[in-house]
Amino acid sequence: MPDHSGQAADPGSIDALIEAQRPGYSLDQAFYTHPAIFERDRERVFRNHWFMAGHASQIPKAGDYLLFELAAESIILVRDAEGAIHAHYNVCRHRGSRVLLAPAGNARAITCRYHGWTYAPDGSLQAAPRMGADFRPGDHGLKPCCVRIVEGLLFVSLSDDPAPALDDVVAGLAPYLRLHGVADAKLAHRETYAVRANWKLTVENYLECYHCKPAHQEYCGVEIKADKIGDGSPAALARYEARHRVWLARATALGATMPEFGTELPLDVSLPRAQFGAAYRAPLRESYLSATQDGKPAAPLMGGFRDYDGGETALGLGPFTYMLAYNDHAVFFQFVPREAEQSEIVVSWLVHGAAREGVDYDRARLTWLWSVTTEQDKSIIEANAAGIRSSRYEPGPSSLLEYDLDGFRAWYLAVTGPPSRLKRLSRRGGGRYFGI
Amino acid sequence: MPDHSGQAADPGSIDALIEAQRPGYSLDQAFYTHPAIFERDRERVFRNHWFMAGHASQIPKAGDYLLFELAAESIILVRDAEGAIHAHYNVCRHRGSRVLLAPAGNARAITCRYHGWTYAPDGSLQAAPRMGADFRPGDHGLKPCCVRIVEGLLFVSLSDDPAPALDDVVAGLAPYLRLHGVADAKLAHRETYAVRANWKLTVENYLECYHCKPAHQEYCGVEIKADKIGDGSPAALARYEARHRVWLARATALGATMPEFGTELPLDVSLPRAQFGAAYRAPLRESYLSATQDGKPAAPLMGGFRDYDGGETALGLGPFTYMLAYNDHAVFFQFVPREAEQSEIVVSWLVHGAAREGVDYDRARLTWLWSVTTEQDKSIIEANAAGIRSSRYEPGPSSLLEYDLDGFRAWYLAVTGPPSRLKRLSRRGGGRYFGI
Amino acid sequence: MPDHSGQAADPGSIDALIEAQRPGYSLDQAFYTHPAIFERDRERVFRNHWFMAGHASQIPKAGDYLLFELAAESIILVRDAEGAIHAHYNVCRHRGSRVLLAPAGNARAITCRYHGWTYAPDGSLQAAPRMGADFRPGDHGLKPCCVRIVEGLLFVSLSDDPAPALDDVVAGLAPYLRLHGVADAKLAHRETYAVRANWKLTVENYLECYHCKPAHQEYCGVEIKADKIGDGSPAALARYEARHRVWLARATALGATMPEFGTELPLDVSLPRAQFGAAYRAPLRESYLSATQDGKPAAPLMGGFRDYDGGETALGLGPFTYMLAYNDHAVFFQFVPREAEQSEIVVSWLVHGAAREGVDYDRARLTWLWSVTTEQDKSIIEANAAGIRSSRYEPGPSSLLEYDLDGFRAWYLAVTGPPSRLKRLSRRGGGRYFGI
Repeated sequence: MPDHSGQAADPGSIDALIEAQRPGYSLDQAFYTHPAIFERDRERVFRNHWFMAGHASQIPKAGDYLLFELAAESIILVRDAEGAIHAHYNVCRHRGSRVLLAPAGNARAITCRYHGWTYAPDGSLQAAPRMGADFRPGDHGLKPCCVRIVEGLLFVSLSDDPAPALDDVVAGLAPYLRLHGVADAKLAHRETYAVRANWKLTVENYLECYHCKPAHQEYCGVEIKADKIGDGSPAALARYEARHRVWLARATALGATMPEFGTELPLDVSLPRAQFGAAYRAPLRESYLSATQDGKPAAPLMGGFRDYDGGETALGLGPFTYMLAYNDHAVFFQFVPREAEQSEIVVSWLVHGAAREGVDYDRARLTWLWSVTTEQDKSIIEANAAGIRSSRYEPGPSSLLEYDLDGFRAWYLAVTGPPSRLKRLSRRGGGRYFGI
Repeated sequence: MPDHSGQAADPGSIDALIEAQRPGYSLDQAFYTHPAIFERDRERVFRNHWFMAGHASQIPKAGDYLLFELAAESIILVRDAEGAIHAHYNVCRHRGSRVLLAPAGNARAITCRYHGWTYAPDGSLQAAPRMGADFRPGDHGLKPCCVRIVEGLLFVSLSDDPAPALDDVVAGLAPYLRLHGVADAKLAHRETYAVRANWKLTVENYLECYHCKPAHQEYCGVEIKADKIGDGSPAALARYEARHRVWLARATALGATMPEFGTELPLDVSLPRAQFGAAYRAPLRESYLSATQDGKPAAPLMGGFRDYDGGETALGLGPFTYMLAYNDHAVFFQFVPREAEQSEIVVSWLVHGAAREGVDYDRARLTWLWSVTTEQDKSIIEANAAGIRSSRYEPGPSSLLEYDLDGFRAWYLAVTGPPSRLKRLSRRGGGRYFGI
Repeated sequence: MPDHSGQAADPGSIDALIEAQRPGYSLDQAFYTHPAIFERDRERVFRNHWFMAGHASQIPKAGDYLLFELAAESIILVRDAEGAIHAHYNVCRHRGSRVLLAPAGNARAITCRYHGWTYAPDGSLQAAPRMGADFRPGDHGLKPCCVRIVEGLLFVSLSDDPAPALDDVVAGLAPYLRLHGVADAKLAHRETYAVRANWKLTVENYLECYHCKPAHQEYCGVEIKADKIGDGSPAALARYEARHRVWLARATALGATMPEFGTELPLDVSLPRAQFGAAYRAPLRESYLSATQDGKPAAPLMGGFRDYDGGETALGLGPFTYMLAYNDHAVFFQFVPREAEQSEIVVSWLVHGAAREGVDYDRARLTWLWSVTTEQDKSIIEANAAGIRSSRYEPGPSSLLEYDLDGFRAWYLAVTGPPSRLKRLSRRGGGRYFGI
């Protein structure tokens, strides 16, 4: 399946290519460039898994809405007068116009700007002037999109069928989200980075810290595990373990009562880690209380924390969404497919819902680390995509620090490949996010 | 025929899709997005119908030319020393270069900038230096393009075969063009709006005023029928009819002698309305004399008018061109296909040929209504195109005010579909422009 | 093979199209626009022929490197500590990232910014942290690219197999390069012109001076042969021949000792002119010593010249690279394919290696002629490409001055067509560059 010819691939040839991928190696060029593979991703991946679309605090009042856009889709998330949040495809049932255009706002009635068709927050069609006698408004509501709120986080699924189960996930991840007070948080800042690369390159970049030392100087000044990774010698490991024990004792003493506190979060093995996984809780650099340039706190404490323990919690909230949370703020990363070689990274910073900008936190201080780091990621991801376009690119082997990539790729090939492959997919020990 | 896969459609699958379209509903996604459908549009629609390319007043002197561009084509319209206007493909017969690049100008000889091949206004090759002995200049004239001048309007057809007949059309429409003095007009302003949407969405937008009330506040302040449409109650209709009778009597008294004056222009039913149709003549808002912000005249009276009757005449000049004319100016709308999802709307304002800018008319006043309205149309058409790209888009039903869309779509599917479909196409009562 | 449908061409249909091309005429539209043809060009042309990538003076010190990019490829040319120059594909063997991003610089070790894999200048992998026990560094060096240095010029070939032979070429062309002192030159200026056109249109533009009179006023003021071409009468030819004899005698007297001096460079007929050819050595406009606006020298004498003879030497250094050299500077033209309808023209000006900018030469004076002329070429090439996109484009006949185009096209069709065609390719008398 040559990538450059513009030739379309038949489904069988995609299946054969999937079967030909070598475990422990990066994928063939076509997976990162070919429109036919992107089409399959659309059908098998984007439609069957949950995307985080935002946080409930972004739409606090009746009629408040936000849009979530990926590939060719636009989803409206809107709060009704009773406080419930609904999700709909942003496609008017008249002639298909986007109904709402502004990325966020307040719309007590959802009125299409084009012909004035008006929908209730629950999606039902309330008004459509001058339609014929046989027109049935009840058949022309906005098409619903699966939505689920987990500790204030808004998740949507593009699935036609009943959306994938989420209850086990909630049970597994909610304690960590509650510890960090995510439900009571508010959005302090949000930044979108356009990246000229396939979405899988943006996820792969996130799933490993093998690149942290060469690419992220600022990050390595804040996150202690980067030291560990950077050297890897027995002596470094021993130093890290000692620090870790001190931090763990201190964190527990401070009242972070989660019993499972530790380097790896011991999620119930029945959790569908193919979609949602937990990663770790670990200390920042010695003496750092938060992920800021000087290590001092960035904002008021959140959730269950009574003092700063200098720790970081990492969670995987589905294949496209990840969280890094400190005692005083939480950062969410959304990896959003747009086209075969175009994606977006959306970074959201959350603080305590009562925190006041300029008083309780400074936006620039708060966003420093993940602004500078995501800019670096955009640059290295785009360089990765450029190299993969070469005729001489061939998949290379994973390092010992890229175990999560192998888990991700095994999961990806299973859900996009022939059914037999999905059956063969079994639990693997390596990865933390996709350790299936 | 999935739209996103990059897969090419075979001709049979396009025919099947055409047959599957539901009357009274918008078209399937592929008609607005797929390059293979655009290719069929190119072969069956763009090549077989007339485009208005400009007005004779734009090229008054010998050697004056203008370019008309659509899709990948560029047409030269040039006036010769005897005053005749010729049209040629702007493709040098040597190695294919565009011969003229500036969108308009004067070129006594049409000389290709690349190698100096020089053509007469009639397209014949006059000079081609250093060609071999067997070179026959007579075989290397510019390829001719069908051109026809109707009351000063320049029409071109990309047809290879004899261009579609136009005589009946001229007979049917010329009285209205003469009433408005189009032949003696001049171009006062011209604006091109690039629209990221398929050309059919630009035409559909024009063919209905269902969207006027939600989308065009300024227009609704000027055009009385928008009031009628906006409410639709029996009382509103009665008010409108009363106003209309008053206006009709006044217009007739003012010497607008066209016997058929009325809401609908009674064109001869033998007129090929699939290509050219008449719409209506109707009054503006009460007390408005022209389509200006304050209702006062914009320019000197044109054509047969002896005073302002506050009326507007609407004509369809082929599938891609429409006219709205007032007592003192005429506005032409060209909907120009460029790519599958890229079009242009070109708006031209004509005034009396003797009117002087800054003295007899003010350009900003003259162009106010259709500048602001076309900017709005660009925005809503692009939102329509964006929504149609969603996997959840499905064709929706027309309102009672969108009869012309049904006529347009029936015509479109007939001329692009299998031959049997064209035979089935019969006269329908609904539409004014495409009421075939 | 319609160009606009997005339909992919099967290999057989490309072969049939190649066989259908008419000698002495420009090529069909698809050769200048279709992605499937570009894909064949990539396989058969870009991979099998030499590109000039730069000049050794651009990377004088150990660790100095430059990148050469064409289509989707990026090549690193780097000098090692012993002074040898190596070429590698700029694709990390880990996950495919571009290793170096800046177009030129110094990199004692070639370290991938992404994960820190580090390569020696000879491409061998020196460091790859934290790889598994079974990882074999020796299998993961940068993929080598064929490189050859000819009189200071850096040539690369994308060939998988042994690169095409170059020895005969060197033997044939080296005397001319030595006369002009190319090996001892340095890069004074380099400019890249993005051109929206297929690469073949950029080469065709270079290979004929039929367009010089209509398109290049400045060039025609400097180059005497343009006068000859512009008129072509027996009287003009006689005047030119007389001037030429005077110049030839003077040039010889000045010690330009090359015995073959003359209008046409008599290369050994065994030279594979399909790839490398010589064109001519001819005088500039009378009294002009160099190709400058006022005819005065631009820089110190180079190579074997002891005084200014006012001559110009033209060489073809493969299908993508050409040289024009004067007594005091040499200009190299690289025609670089990027996409089916996107190319670059890279122009490099070389002067004597010891010449100092601002003292021995003025950059603006030096680059004047080929800056202004290449800007003009960009414009006319893009107009050529635009015209060829028309449905009414058809190939046109070559003039008597376009003999090199016929040679180029015959060569191109032979190397991209079915094998039988390559066998039929025989020596032809017409062209100077591709006179095969």
